[in-house]
Amino acid sequence: MLQASSQALRLSDADLPRSAAGHLVIIGGNEDKVHDKLVLRRFVELTARREPKIVVLTAASNYHEEISAVYDRAFGDLGVTQRKALAIHSREDANHPAVVEDILSADGIFMTGGDQRRLLALIGGTAAYTAMHRAFIERGSCVAGTSAGASAMSAHMIAEGQGDIHPEKGVVSFAVGLGFLQRAVVDQHFSERRRLGRLMAVVAQNPSLLGIGIDEDTALVVERGSGFEVIGDGAVTLVDGRQMSSNFLDIGERELIELINVRLHLLPAGASYVHRAGTCSDAQGGREINPTLHEIVDILSSNETVS
Amino acid sequence: MLQASSQALRLSDADLPRSAAGHLVIIGGNEDKVHDKLVLRRFVELTARREPKIVVLTAASNYHEEISAVYDRAFGDLGVTQRKALAIHSREDANHPAVVEDILSADGIFMTGGDQRRLLALIGGTAAYTAMHRAFIERGSCVAGTSAGASAMSAHMIAEGQGDIHPEKGVVSFAVGLGFLQRAVVDQHFSERRRLGRLMAVVAQNPSLLGIGIDEDTALVVERGSGFEVIGDGAVTLVDGRQMSSNFLDIGERELIELINVRLHLLPAGASYVHRAGTCSDAQGGREINPTLHEIVDILSSNETVS
Repeated sequence: MLQASSQALRLSDADLPRSAAGHLVIIGGNEDKVHDKLVLRRFVELTARREPKIVVLTAASNYHEEISAVYDRAFGDLGVTQRKALAIHSREDANHPAVVEDILSADGIFMTGGDQRRLLALIGGTAAYTAMHRAFIERGSCVAGTSAGASAMSAHMIAEGQGDIHPEKGVVSFAVGLGFLQRAVVDQHFSERRRLGRLMAVVAQNPSLLGIGIDEDTALVVERGSGFEVIGDGAVTLVDGRQMSSNFLDIGERELIELINVRLHLLPAGASYVHRAGTCSDAQGGREINPTLHEIVDILSSNETVS
Repeated sequence: MLQASSQALRLSDADLPRSAAGHLVIIGGNEDKVHDKLVLRRFVELTARREPKIVVLTAASNYHEEISAVYDRAFGDLGVTQRKALAIHSREDANHPAVVEDILSADGIFMTGGDQRRLLALIGGTAAYTAMHRAFIERGSCVAGTSAGASAMSAHMIAEGQGDIHPEKGVVSFAVGLGFLQRAVVDQHFSERRRLGRLMAVVAQNPSLLGIGIDEDTALVVERGSGFEVIGDGAVTLVDGRQMSSNFLDIGERELIELINVRLHLLPAGASYVHRAGTCSDAQGGREINPTLHEIVDILSSNETVS
């Protein structure tokens, strides 16, 4: 499907340099937009262009004008001159050739917060959606999303769900996401909204998915085929349920779930892991990392994209 | 030491029936004292006596009169006729023969909340302390503690420490506890006060200790040599860092700790695991439990007491 649509766009090879590896910048919401702008600054740097073109997708939100103004100022402050907020209010907008051109030619694509269901309802399966994947895979563009835009990154997306202290059965509903991460599910505002229980409930129901909880003003930065790092102010929590056992099938709705042997990784900003020649190491110190993280590096950086 | 002190107490064998296995009732604080009294009721049942004698130790608190009145009413409501609150305001009180006699003859010993450091400062190493261990080991008495009384249960005790969202280095200080659990450390008011970060910080610094986080109105009930169960309203969270790696030694004070491969078990009320003939099973359903829990059952129920 991706292949077919991309042919229809009739871009020349010159427009699509294939060398660069794309980055995902998955932000837990509430990133600083006024002061140090640590996370937004890194996003701009990861476009790896002296004069990057950045497009902002506000489709998750009902407030295009207000939100695009905030990011226009933030990216302007960061020295980005080519910046454009795309107003996508309908699926027709998301299939419009001008929108597609803007996405395909962008070095950085930034999805704002709002409601991830709205975002997917507007762009899921459209030409804009295909263009985002092409830009990421073929041009090595940097794709970022904050809050709802972060949740939308994974193929299986948390649509909504009460975040209680403990994991309860049946409190989280899923929807189809953008598919930049195939074997993981993203949750945001993670520590601030006490969402470990909710994320463990997701993993209890779907032990094959790696749960990723991202704090506010914090981002998980994935380099395609290489590794990942954590930047910003907080931490990223990974919940790995592949060796877990639970009583999920035996209990009723809203009951607390018994979870045994959940593997949890807490990665503060500064943590960085890269894949090199069959082994993994800490990107800063070069020290060998815990073998359990090898698979995690694979899960996050392989980016089997939609097929 | 325990042996020597116990001889000095000159109790006859008849006073110390050795058949019963002692129970620990480790309560996360704020247990219901007025309505269903689920946790306190179980404590009374676990004395396994038709007419149990229950003593209440308020030594953790500055408010002996107020607190003992609350528990006197609660245990009275539960049909306990032989109940006594022990006023221990000094180490002399804790070495007083009458206090020792009351503890040694009690079927249930209940430690209230307050400050665990105060509790240990008053009774640590005293004759009252020795009597508690003798009653537990030799008579099979039931020993309960709530809040500070729960923290005091373990040999290594959390003295104080800020409970932030994430584990930070150097925020938790330790003290010597009562030693009813040798290879674990207890934290209470666990979910309500968001203490997972603090407990992970403890485990990061001491990976050989099993972290036990107990919610309010919830108890971990350990049967010596047999197994454990969770009762009440919430859950018990176990943090096992024995296969963990962390950057604890490389970072400064108050920095977030990177933790990789923490094994986490979440056990809601109703969970119950018993040790039988070399295997472990779920006490209700009889189903085999995850092998990771076998060791946990050993750690909790072996109760190598102070030597």
